Amino acid sequence: MKKNSKSIIVQEAIKLFNTQGYSGTSLRDIAKKANVNIANIAYYFDNKQGLLEFCFTTFFEQYLSEMEEAVAVLDEGAMASLRNLVSNLIYFQCKNIHLTRFIIREMSIDSQIVREIMTTYSLKEKFYFQKILERGIEKGEFKPHSSNYLIIQLKSLLNMPFLYSHYLSEVLHVLPHERYFADQYIREIFQWMESSLFTEAKFPEEIVVS
Amino acid sequence: MKKNSKSIIVQEAIKLFNTQGYSGTSLRDIAKKANVNIANIAYYFDNKQGLLEFCFTTFFEQYLSEMEEAVAVLDEGAMASLRNLVSNLIYFQCKNIHLTRFIIREMSIDSQIVREIMTTYSLKEKFYFQKILERGIEKGEFKPHSSNYLIIQLKSLLNMPFLYSHYLSEVLHVLPHERYFADQYIREIFQWMESSLFTEAKFPEEIVVS
Repeated sequence: MKKNSKSIIVQEAIKLFNTQGYSGTSLRDIAKKANVNIANIAYYFDNKQGLLEFCFTTFFEQYLSEMEEAVAVLDEGAMASLRNLVSNLIYFQCKNIHLTRFIIREMSIDSQIVREIMTTYSLKEKFYFQKILERGIEKGEFKPHSSNYLIIQLKSLLNMPFLYSHYLSEVLHVLPHERYFADQYIREIFQWMESSLFTEAKFPEEIVVS
Repeated sequence: MKKNSKSIIVQEAIKLFNTQGYSGTSLRDIAKKANVNIANIAYYFDNKQGLLEFCFTTFFEQYLSEMEEAVAVLDEGAMASLRNLVSNLIYFQCKNIHLTRFIIREMSIDSQIVREIMTTYSLKEKFYFQKILERGIEKGEFKPHSSNYLIIQLKSLLNMPFLYSHYLSEVLHVLPHERYFADQYIREIFQWMESSLFTEAKFPEEIVVS
């Protein structure tokens, strides 16, 4: 069995899922692309469902740990914490653009596995968002606002460019896998936060280029 | 052949696509759910690809005509036009929530049909966005800004709640198919536009509850 074959299988599987869809991709397609035999895939993941679960878990464990890091600095202020959260999640998704695109797409299907993910990871994600938002409102750093609607907007702004990565590069000629995009886009979200969310309107140049 | 069977086929197909994925759904599944035989489906759409194309066309023809309506009032001002565009698209997607969710998901796959949709509908969509944004900047109604990054943010805010409709209802307990959600969410986007985009900060209460 080749070294690194597990990560090659995952990588090739995600590429195929993003061009043919998850159900439109067979283990045989993946085996062929990854240059392994089907038994190799079965050894690591049992079956396609196991591979899917591995993708979800890999994505959300990292995604939530990026959020946790940001929540850990909440005592330095809700603004600082939210800025950290935004940068962490944008850089993380930018670095894992193919996986992100696949996961965000699959999360919109009403299936058993997605329901399980929602009752674990999505609830935890909501908990972190709420913790920062509620602290900010409580301490007067943020304008009073429904946290649900803020979460909808934040998640939209955070996730969508990576789901639409293909659209961004083909139609808008913006390259969402590049560090330049991430830096610029984080700045855009910070501006949105400044004007829509924060009570004090000051723009922290020094944090932007982190 | 039953009356309305075409629309019943489409309706049931979309429901299945949203629970099993497009490739995970067979014509046989659709025929069973719609209570027709496969020949009926073939009569209207030839095959599953034909049904997919029909869904894309139906969605984008209406989506773009909602945009066109908004662009038609551009001479009354770019702000008014952009507000119209936002309300039209939110109400349209809210009314067609299952179709919207399916289309936004499929648009993230790098396939032949999506590439075709991008070179026609997505370019037209971009053209309308740009037309309003550039007019607004030119006339001093909007702050000078990269229109590509504005389009990314606008599209994120406009489309995402409907892709995430399942997440919204299950995790946030917000119901995106209800008129109440649409009204409230339009207000949120207007506030974002007010503070991030418009040079004059005034909030038009009368337009919100349209």
